[in-house]
Amino acid sequence: MKIPISIVKKSGDIVVFDVEKLTNSLRRASAGENVIQQIVGEVQSTIYEGMTTSKIYKIAFDLLKKYSRVSASKYKLKTALFELGPSGFPFEKLVGKLMAHEGFSTQVGVIVQGNCVSHEIDVIADKDDQHCFIECKFHSDQGRFCNVKIPLYVNSRFLDVEKQWKKQKSNEGKISKGGVYTNTRFTSDATQYGKCAGLLMASWDYPFGNGLKERIDKSGLHPLTALTTLTKNEKTKLLDLGLVLCKEIYENPEVLNQIGISKPRHKNIIKDAKELCSLH
Amino acid sequence: MKIPISIVKKSGDIVVFDVEKLTNSLRRASAGENVIQQIVGEVQSTIYEGMTTSKIYKIAFDLLKKYSRVSASKYKLKTALFELGPSGFPFEKLVGKLMAHEGFSTQVGVIVQGNCVSHEIDVIADKDDQHCFIECKFHSDQGRFCNVKIPLYVNSRFLDVEKQWKKQKSNEGKISKGGVYTNTRFTSDATQYGKCAGLLMASWDYPFGNGLKERIDKSGLHPLTALTTLTKNEKTKLLDLGLVLCKEIYENPEVLNQIGISKPRHKNIIKDAKELCSLH
Repeated sequence: MKIPISIVKKSGDIVVFDVEKLTNSLRRASAGENVIQQIVGEVQSTIYEGMTTSKIYKIAFDLLKKYSRVSASKYKLKTALFELGPSGFPFEKLVGKLMAHEGFSTQVGVIVQGNCVSHEIDVIADKDDQHCFIECKFHSDQGRFCNVKIPLYVNSRFLDVEKQWKKQKSNEGKISKGGVYTNTRFTSDATQYGKCAGLLMASWDYPFGNGLKERIDKSGLHPLTALTTLTKNEKTKLLDLGLVLCKEIYENPEVLNQIGISKPRHKNIIKDAKELCSLH
Repeated sequence: MKIPISIVKKSGDIVVFDVEKLTNSLRRASAGENVIQQIVGEVQSTIYEGMTTSKIYKIAFDLLKKYSRVSASKYKLKTALFELGPSGFPFEKLVGKLMAHEGFSTQVGVIVQGNCVSHEIDVIADKDDQHCFIECKFHSDQGRFCNVKIPLYVNSRFLDVEKQWKKQKSNEGKISKGGVYTNTRFTSDATQYGKCAGLLMASWDYPFGNGLKERIDKSGLHPLTALTTLTKNEKTKLLDLGLVLCKEIYENPEVLNQIGISKPRHKNIIKDAKELCSLH
């Protein structure tokens, strides 16, 4: 049996390094078993007491990129979501596209009159008789969780727009819901309040087994920031053009010309984008 | 007629220097008419195009301190509120004391069980059949206003604790209210929402004519940070001891010994504290 090694999390918490967790995260990225064994072996040979999880992640990511660029893209999904910033707008679009994929008709960034004041609603999503008002909370910083104040204000905002919305005769008999989507995590009282208040709640890992990570993987709606074949600057240009998904690149490959990427690089970028979206 | 001079506000807005405003602010600080004329004259002789309002304020304050320390204390009330930071706790105490002065029995910083989750309520204030749950929003920075999200989350929090509170038989027939008190200002949609939702709202200058500045002046509950006879370090020590008002200094003068202030200085400090509180 090996001596347990303590490592340091982003939060500052010290935990024992768990090789199973590393293996699972690589497996989630669809890395082959051989590659996983290779990476786990290399990480174990370099790990030391007090190493940070982000350093371990970086080593694993760099190795994975060498063996399989597309697995590396899947592996960096969480980081890729952060890279949608600094503004929250690309994340709102991503949430809109996820809900559209799930059968809703969606609008992003709409000013809606409430009973007391008007509000900007990040995503309005309709399906059959359901009408959802979703607030997106984007954080650029891993350490920032969504605390209870977020679902609290979202609920008041929802109740204010719902009150006005119900006054319209055409909305009679329809069901309305409020919701919060975030790229980070909720504190436990935030989920507790949100559930109790009847809000639709989604975060990186909530609801368990159907968080954003699983929903993105299942739908193939990977953000373009996951691609390892684009530079940060190129990603920013694509986001500025209004694109947010890998899918949108291979569906409109001319955007690569538009942002000045030389022809010889197109093939690899499109190949990775396609592979990533089809890898479930 | 003088040529209008443009000055720069904290917000970055450029406005024309208004001698009336300066005069009124000095009058509000109970400065004598001679002193006001003197200060206005000196400010007018040093003012230049593009001068910041905080520089003008500093000149006026330094002059006022020379002529009347106690007027200077009144003049710096807004700054004195900021100096209650960096934590929001002294401001919560001040709000508690203001409400106590207005006939409420108050508790500060109480954990209350709501229907969904438990909440920390900054000030609970009872009078007759009224039961108020007040959230205090302290900002250390003049530029930070209370936007609409604050009354939105405060209202949800209030509704959550109210729901639980109403379940108790002993509270039947009683009236409960939620509220937000802030040392800075509200945005216009924040007051609009708060009023519409029935929240008690108070800020530096809201409600008009009965904001915190007027309520502090009328009650004589000036924060000890207003005193010009104490150093920043000494003020911090007093706040750390749990004191927050000038009044608490002259009512317990031994605290001055406790924080190591030499006897000869006590007289001036206590004199200023008393004068400030009696100057309406």
